[in-house]
Amino acid sequence: MNINLNENFFKLKESYLFSEIAKRVRDYSAKNTDKKIIKLGIGDVTLPLTPVVITSMHKAVDEMGNKDSFRGYAPEYGYNFIRDTVASFYKTWGVSIEGEEVFVSDGAKSDLGNIVDILGDNLILIPDPVYPVYLDSNIMSGRKVKFLNATIENNFLPMPDETITESTIIYLCSPNNPTGAVYSHKQLKIWVDYAIKTGSLIIFDSAYATFIKGDLPHSIFEIDGAKKCCIEINSLSKMAGFTGTRCAWTIVPNALESNGHKLNKMWARRQATKFNGVPYIIQRGAEAVFSEKGLQESKALVEYYMENARLISEVLKEKGVWFTGGISSPYIWLKCPNNLGSWEFFDYLLNNAQIVGTPGQGFGNGGEGYFRLTSFGDRENTLEAVERLRKLL
Amino acid sequence: MNINLNENFFKLKESYLFSEIAKRVRDYSAKNTDKKIIKLGIGDVTLPLTPVVITSMHKAVDEMGNKDSFRGYAPEYGYNFIRDTVASFYKTWGVSIEGEEVFVSDGAKSDLGNIVDILGDNLILIPDPVYPVYLDSNIMSGRKVKFLNATIENNFLPMPDETITESTIIYLCSPNNPTGAVYSHKQLKIWVDYAIKTGSLIIFDSAYATFIKGDLPHSIFEIDGAKKCCIEINSLSKMAGFTGTRCAWTIVPNALESNGHKLNKMWARRQATKFNGVPYIIQRGAEAVFSEKGLQESKALVEYYMENARLISEVLKEKGVWFTGGISSPYIWLKCPNNLGSWEFFDYLLNNAQIVGTPGQGFGNGGEGYFRLTSFGDRENTLEAVERLRKLL
Repeated sequence: MNINLNENFFKLKESYLFSEIAKRVRDYSAKNTDKKIIKLGIGDVTLPLTPVVITSMHKAVDEMGNKDSFRGYAPEYGYNFIRDTVASFYKTWGVSIEGEEVFVSDGAKSDLGNIVDILGDNLILIPDPVYPVYLDSNIMSGRKVKFLNATIENNFLPMPDETITESTIIYLCSPNNPTGAVYSHKQLKIWVDYAIKTGSLIIFDSAYATFIKGDLPHSIFEIDGAKKCCIEINSLSKMAGFTGTRCAWTIVPNALESNGHKLNKMWARRQATKFNGVPYIIQRGAEAVFSEKGLQESKALVEYYMENARLISEVLKEKGVWFTGGISSPYIWLKCPNNLGSWEFFDYLLNNAQIVGTPGQGFGNGGEGYFRLTSFGDRENTLEAVERLRKLL
Repeated sequence: MNINLNENFFKLKESYLFSEIAKRVRDYSAKNTDKKIIKLGIGDVTLPLTPVVITSMHKAVDEMGNKDSFRGYAPEYGYNFIRDTVASFYKTWGVSIEGEEVFVSDGAKSDLGNIVDILGDNLILIPDPVYPVYLDSNIMSGRKVKFLNATIENNFLPMPDETITESTIIYLCSPNNPTGAVYSHKQLKIWVDYAIKTGSLIIFDSAYATFIKGDLPHSIFEIDGAKKCCIEINSLSKMAGFTGTRCAWTIVPNALESNGHKLNKMWARRQATKFNGVPYIIQRGAEAVFSEKGLQESKALVEYYMENARLISEVLKEKGVWFTGGISSPYIWLKCPNNLGSWEFFDYLLNNAQIVGTPGQGFGNGGEGYFRLTSFGDRENTLEAVERLRKLL
């Protein structure tokens, strides 16, 4: 063929991170068959779905097998039962949104990737280091990207660059993946004020909101003025163990307009044209998460993981290793000891403690010299990893 | 805000079709509360998921509730168990494809909409009338579209326009939605030869393939040379009643290249960046469809609907109404009697027989004067509708 392809794809960097990790682990294992390797690298959950979710999905499966209760095409934006449930849930954070502002989807990654469909050409501001989808989806659509440097000096929480006065699209992730850093109300108010002043849009990724402890914002909509300049994307993946079950939501406020055009209507049209809704069975599972019992069960999942985070954090403190995260986030972002590079520390940990983590460099150049550990492992392995770190560091 | 939006969205026509139908039905019902309305309009299935699918999903739900069998993130392209199963299924059509050429997704609509992400600016050829997603997703990305006129003269099966000699993107749907027309091997060979000659890409929508009776191609890959110029998109929605359960697949052959770039790798990158896979539970349900028992059960669903199609077809033949489809497709596409317009015939049927169909005009200007009836209703209602048509026409 000689059709024209989207040439922006050829500007993407090959993503070697997880394949390179897998390769190094494989090579090490082959030479050290007697050694037990503990993985604290990937951002995937390990605890099963909770009982109310399982019960609810069994019921929904039965409904789908019966002519009288069978459901065909779901509304593209989600059934009202789940849109309204999500809206109600936000009340616990003091946020008032309508069900029709909630778009239910198969994943935060999908929505973060697809949101570019409704946007034109704008300068894009993306933290570095950060979750790679923000950058890659904007490279794919040929956008110009400027990085917001997240550094040890700003506690990995970059603030507005007042020298940029044009309208931009700003990606923020709090609690942050990979750094675990969390913005305060005051900091997010500065971001929202900056967005309003410059006419910019903030795309706020709050996938780790339920890991927050203490008085920190769970939603950008806790901030005055945010409905005029923000879209929020959240998910059940980490909150309720839905990484392999797939349910997320995007909030596009009715008040969100650019030059008189409502973004809610544009996203609705995008989803109605290119998406056919989340499986009914999954929507019923998701609904159950937000029941009283479901929320208790999800909280227990988060607490289990956060106890792992506490155990890892303790040994790092004990050894004087600088880190952020681990309090209101399942991720611990540490400075590699002895000024080792990200991959050097990766090899050091693998060879000397048989622990696999994620080199910070994989999340952007700003991550070089840092390293991500996750608390999503099981308790037994985490405890063993902690003991190994205690001996090694 | 004053960010730049994707202004192509403002060129989209508002889709009033199904809301206008709903409004007219509502108005009629309000005035005629004693009349029973029979809906033969929407393209949604009514029979429940089959027993093997239900059993398989219950098992998968249980696995997700147990720590030892729990599954987190699925591979973005689908588990090998389903990719390989789909590839094996194609052998029944004499087509040899590899599992890695199969990308499993949440819907044909998603893939048909998202495929534009990997394509550059090309002239787009789209049949008229046709399923609206082809047109809308290309308008959204600012492409120039030329219609392939499907008319009564070509039996609603447009063939290549030899005056177009440049490389284009060609959308074909066979069996066709809404016309039910099906291309022969000979006709598709002409299309494939034309695509190869002009360096074009064919995007082949085969969502209704299992409705085919007799010696007609189920897959574009039955045609010699197709792997060099075709992508095929198919789904379990109509084949196994998955409209509310969501599982589809797209085949991007390894041999498919444009100017040295492999489209399989580009689609892989698109999906890995903007999609996180189909729920494990749903993938297990989908796998069950392709088991020996599952295929028998799916066949019974299709046969049930096709008996409805036969009943509707018979009364149309009896009354001398011109139509196509209804033999290898669940859709019957009829010429409105007495040269009525699509909406005039809609009102006529609603007012005089309380039957709701879909005005052909809703699928493009070429559909004006035509009307779509579907066989997805239940038997009892379909029989009653047939009797009403027998009296009315």
